[in-house]
Amino acid sequence: MFAIAPAMGKANLSASQLKLLSGKARWIFRVGEAGFPTVPTIALTRAAWEALQHERLQRDVRLRTHWIACLFKLVGKDETPPLLVVRTSAATHNGGLMSAKMGIAAPTNAEDAVDPTRALAKAIKNAFDSYGFGQGWTGRADEDRGKQIVLVQSVAEGEIEQFLTRNATTGALGPAPLNGAPLPRFPESVDALVSLLDAKAGRHMCCTVAIRKGQVLFLSARPSQVTAAADLEAAVDRVTRKVWTAQNAVSRVDPTRLTQLLHPRLKSKDGVTPIAMGLGVSPGAASGVIVFNAEDAARMRARGKHCILVVNETGPADIEGMKAATGILTARGGMTSHAGVIARITGKPCVASVRTMSVDASEMVCRIGDREFRMGDRLTIDGSDGSVYLGTLPLAQPHIGGAIGKLLGWSDASRTISVRTNAETVDSAMTALSFGAEGIGLARSEHMFFSTERMVALRRMILSEDEEDRSRAVNGLVDFQTGDYSNLFSAMKGLPVTVRLFDPPLHEFLPRSDEDIEETAASLGLAVRALRLRLERLAEFNPMLGHRGVRLAITYPEILQMQMQAIMAGARAASETQNEPVSVEVMVPFVSTASEVAWVRERVYAIAANSGLLRSERVKFAFGTMIELPRACLRAGEIASMVDFFSFGTNDLTQTTFGISRDDAPTFLTAYQRKGVYERDPFVSIDEKGVGEMIQIAIERGRAANPKLKIGICGEHAGDPASLKFFSGLGVDYVSCSPYRVPVARLTLAQTSA
Amino acid sequence: MFAIAPAMGKANLSASQLKLLSGKARWIFRVGEAGFPTVPTIALTRAAWEALQHERLQRDVRLRTHWIACLFKLVGKDETPPLLVVRTSAATHNGGLMSAKMGIAAPTNAEDAVDPTRALAKAIKNAFDSYGFGQGWTGRADEDRGKQIVLVQSVAEGEIEQFLTRNATTGALGPAPLNGAPLPRFPESVDALVSLLDAKAGRHMCCTVAIRKGQVLFLSARPSQVTAAADLEAAVDRVTRKVWTAQNAVSRVDPTRLTQLLHPRLKSKDGVTPIAMGLGVSPGAASGVIVFNAEDAARMRARGKHCILVVNETGPADIEGMKAATGILTARGGMTSHAGVIARITGKPCVASVRTMSVDASEMVCRIGDREFRMGDRLTIDGSDGSVYLGTLPLAQPHIGGAIGKLLGWSDASRTISVRTNAETVDSAMTALSFGAEGIGLARSEHMFFSTERMVALRRMILSEDEEDRSRAVNGLVDFQTGDYSNLFSAMKGLPVTVRLFDPPLHEFLPRSDEDIEETAASLGLAVRALRLRLERLAEFNPMLGHRGVRLAITYPEILQMQMQAIMAGARAASETQNEPVSVEVMVPFVSTASEVAWVRERVYAIAANSGLLRSERVKFAFGTMIELPRACLRAGEIASMVDFFSFGTNDLTQTTFGISRDDAPTFLTAYQRKGVYERDPFVSIDEKGVGEMIQIAIERGRAANPKLKIGICGEHAGDPASLKFFSGLGVDYVSCSPYRVPVARLTLAQTSA
Repeated sequence: MFAIAPAMGKANLSASQLKLLSGKARWIFRVGEAGFPTVPTIALTRAAWEALQHERLQRDVRLRTHWIACLFKLVGKDETPPLLVVRTSAATHNGGLMSAKMGIAAPTNAEDAVDPTRALAKAIKNAFDSYGFGQGWTGRADEDRGKQIVLVQSVAEGEIEQFLTRNATTGALGPAPLNGAPLPRFPESVDALVSLLDAKAGRHMCCTVAIRKGQVLFLSARPSQVTAAADLEAAVDRVTRKVWTAQNAVSRVDPTRLTQLLHPRLKSKDGVTPIAMGLGVSPGAASGVIVFNAEDAARMRARGKHCILVVNETGPADIEGMKAATGILTARGGMTSHAGVIARITGKPCVASVRTMSVDASEMVCRIGDREFRMGDRLTIDGSDGSVYLGTLPLAQPHIGGAIGKLLGWSDASRTISVRTNAETVDSAMTALSFGAEGIGLARSEHMFFSTERMVALRRMILSEDEEDRSRAVNGLVDFQTGDYSNLFSAMKGLPVTVRLFDPPLHEFLPRSDEDIEETAASLGLAVRALRLRLERLAEFNPMLGHRGVRLAITYPEILQMQMQAIMAGARAASETQNEPVSVEVMVPFVSTASEVAWVRERVYAIAANSGLLRSERVKFAFGTMIELPRACLRAGEIASMVDFFSFGTNDLTQTTFGISRDDAPTFLTAYQRKGVYERDPFVSIDEKGVGEMIQIAIERGRAANPKLKIGICGEHAGDPASLKFFSGLGVDYVSCSPYRVPVARLTLAQTSA
Repeated sequence: MFAIAPAMGKANLSASQLKLLSGKARWIFRVGEAGFPTVPTIALTRAAWEALQHERLQRDVRLRTHWIACLFKLVGKDETPPLLVVRTSAATHNGGLMSAKMGIAAPTNAEDAVDPTRALAKAIKNAFDSYGFGQGWTGRADEDRGKQIVLVQSVAEGEIEQFLTRNATTGALGPAPLNGAPLPRFPESVDALVSLLDAKAGRHMCCTVAIRKGQVLFLSARPSQVTAAADLEAAVDRVTRKVWTAQNAVSRVDPTRLTQLLHPRLKSKDGVTPIAMGLGVSPGAASGVIVFNAEDAARMRARGKHCILVVNETGPADIEGMKAATGILTARGGMTSHAGVIARITGKPCVASVRTMSVDASEMVCRIGDREFRMGDRLTIDGSDGSVYLGTLPLAQPHIGGAIGKLLGWSDASRTISVRTNAETVDSAMTALSFGAEGIGLARSEHMFFSTERMVALRRMILSEDEEDRSRAVNGLVDFQTGDYSNLFSAMKGLPVTVRLFDPPLHEFLPRSDEDIEETAASLGLAVRALRLRLERLAEFNPMLGHRGVRLAITYPEILQMQMQAIMAGARAASETQNEPVSVEVMVPFVSTASEVAWVRERVYAIAANSGLLRSERVKFAFGTMIELPRACLRAGEIASMVDFFSFGTNDLTQTTFGISRDDAPTFLTAYQRKGVYERDPFVSIDEKGVGEMIQIAIERGRAANPKLKIGICGEHAGDPASLKFFSGLGVDYVSCSPYRVPVARLTLAQTSA
């Protein structure tokens, strides 16, 4: 127990007393110390209170005397004992705490000051009782509990007013209204208090004062949660006002909150309850009418209407529908499902794996729980947290104002790890560039086949038994892609572009519906029966571990040939229209042995050499591998000697290290987190002890064999702040994340480098 | 060039000359040295021959003089120059070598002896030319080439005869006929030659002699490949004759050849060509008529007719059919497919993944390549190599005679690593015991549900929404299994039995066909539509990495509860009928974190303690984990402190370390082996550099944390000699393989320990 704001003079606290100050007590002390008029206040720890009570039962008076001396410090010059207020002072905002107990008469004798049947001591006891068990400072509940604080203050006379130190939406320096209700005209001295608190706290504070005869008396303050936008504007404003250095601002803004600024989002979740929860696989919110197929989605779009494509799961045939829709909602599939991948690429909000939903596409009806929905009914989805709402909820559009630009600019000054993006279209590359991407770390080449015309050619190449027909298809595909690559390289203006060779199993590109199969068979001159047989043989039990990645390059060398030709032709075309040399990096995915890398390397360099560009100054060429399998990590030394760079595919590496298919994980991951088996979802934040050690092993062995080896991280984890901090400690050269995550990575990596 | 068998006196070879002797030259020298009459013979290396020719062009005569001196050593007491024979003497049997050139006149002057236009030198030159380039002694082709040998012998007078030193089928000491044709009556001295050669070579030799006037003259010998059975009988016979020690026999029999003795096999593959190739997923050969479903298989069996069940792939509904069939042939699936697993458990030969086959079960017709087959047509399959033959080929039944028993008995004397078996039925446990298994290292508990009655109860437990109905199903399942466990423990008479908790995804046990779904829905009182929806939700994209193993125990604790109750009740029942204490080891599969192990451990011990058996001397109880995921290997230290043993599941560990689904691998593994990307199939022989390092890391970390940790290997690799040698070097305590592989493991581990 000690006076943190005595009625007269300074508090003169010891270092150990200062350390105990938490919650409001801290702000009262700091404001009082700064010389601003503050209501007289005593802070009483639970440990002190319990010692007082123990002493009382022992009929001792030593501590009581000290306590009463403290209470006397609340008495001002007029020497009239004030009425008292008892309030809690929790370190974190906590429902269930006692609200301030006002107007308690000062105790009239010494025993009254400690007897819990009397008003003051009773209020203090109730305040301590309203705390939970421990506040989590040290993780040792008993110790934490002893540090809980109750405040005893003089009652302040005058009008009690509450306000924010800064505007909750714009971040402008206050005083600002708390709940939209207008504020009274404050005396000028409030501005000094606001500036004082803002500088001390470095965040929005909710402040309580008493105003009497133009005098402002500070009562208490606590931090207030505001939107990411307001936080950010405030941070930049503090730099402008020289309260903070730019470096302070960079280190104090929470990178995870930046994403809220970069996607449409629900204006408010107050008073709305989701009707279902799925996985948020592509962030942002979307509202619109339900459609069940691509045609209806296109129709809605043509009419300028927002729509949500609702399906059991998506496949290549749905791509046009997905592009036309505002958002996507699926009953199945996970983060790496077709729906998830395409949604993130196209920037569409997507909620997947809604287990309480079923869709009957032919009947054009879907059920979510007990409810039935038909085309035209309205839904809102939030791909950031996986929630699904009834009706059309109001959305806020992304706001990329000057503040975020300034902050990121400052952050680049202290950042040493490059930030690239995962992109394969000029559109998404441009978005990423506008967010500050320094290259493309992952261009998933297979996405260049995601259009009806190219899909037909690709199918022809895979399925046709007619040699000539096949080679026509290959040539057609080379032509298509050459333009794509040329445009992508040009858009990146000499920044590095890493093209990953074809990765997914071929069957993902083949027809599925009866109609589609019949059409394809007819176009190839195959019997439907024969085509079905071939499709059946291409189907896989565990496609994640199947015929994909480098295995395709080795078994279908014509695919590798076609891709390399297109990449080199694209590089040539781009190099002829710009001053900067084109920087092409070819990357082979899903390798598990050095022999696979050697096989592909030989052919890649043969084609690259054949293009005549390897010795040209107009093109910089590099060859590398994805490292995404445990065996590749162990054999990293052998592999490193054959490549210029490693890029860790942390999604697949997490899947294989844990033996978890991300698409199938939702059925047990929820139970795992509920039962405390996993602390966090390893697909969201990198598992440092397992997958992390794998990466560490690979980096050590890789760099030992090839000191020039460049090391990158691509995959979802490259956009997650916790994971980025870990990668930064491993000494990687670059990370590559989705365009909307580039700002998050820039800021996080600036914080870890500082 | 030197005489290895001069007409008179000893050869007196130097150590470096002795080292050069290979092929027939070696046997001629050794027989001659032993004092048996041998045709005079000179061995000429290519290096010597080329030096002679070089000298001739230089018009020098030093070497020629030496060569002629050698030729003179072929001349006997009568001093008449003999007619000569020139033959090759390759280290390994080699098609394309020149056959012996007989009756060459001895050269009449010095130049004749080296001039390749003259008969002798010409024959020698032709003999050298017929060799390939290098013979693979040193791996350095030039050096090997220099060591190639051509023999120059005197022509022997008399009848030329060929015979084997031992019978090709029974292994009895010879002389024995080479190709079934009866032998003439030999002079008694042949027996001495046979014994001499058998002792020197330690294997069946094919021997050529000349017989004249009751005298036997040795000409040459070469090793002969015979059946594994004959090899084995001969080895044991050599020990009986004290030519070998028991230890010699153990170290000289090839363990891989033992498996040939333990399954029915094709009598001969001469003159038959497979009509298709698939994967041999369960060894042994089977012949019979084609059937397409369980009912027809049962009908055939009832009539005492062998049949082959031919399907696209098998599922739980096919189990009865598989049991009734003699062999199984599938168009899809791999080594770990349902068909493969059940076939190996039930000991049925099975060929899977025949890509040129398609089955139309409803039309009761299958196509293999261009051919069409209907019910009743005959096929023969060989599950050892995956071949499929037209018609019924003759089979040889397994012969487990006294010889194999003796050899394995000897092998146990030097073996330090235990050999257990993978078995869950009393039948297969008994088979394994008869092969010398020292316990069960893997009882796959889910196989106890593979009968129609239990499957119904299991489905009821998984699907029923009626609490009471569910608990009835659970109790029923406990009762069923208690008997199974009791019988299994009793059969093993106190040897350890490791029960692996439920591992596969639940959907593997749920109905698939329309009819089955309708029946199940009716029996559970569920709407068909509702059941279909639940089935759809339980389906998985990558079941290998899905909701299985420990994940089931944590999400469906009632399954764990049911299994543990049955295991403890079974242990109690068995302990009451035998003198030895029952040794139960409970093993949790597919863990990736220590927290999973802790969660299961707590519940397993609670139920075990509750049974009252933990403190009983009648039951020994242990708890362990499968280590089959890369993350479990890395976190082995943490995990080891909570368990008594690790058992490495090398199949799943290979799948996750390589990122290869074994079921899907055939599509690219063939191309990988053809293109030299993989040296060997990592699912057959353990990948030492990748998966092997994973195991090594886990053993090091596990033993460091828990020095008492017992370490086993279960999985296919535990029956593969190359892999067993590797495991032996890691210091494992036991291996566990399928019953028919137990002898292979016993012999291999004796060889590695010696």
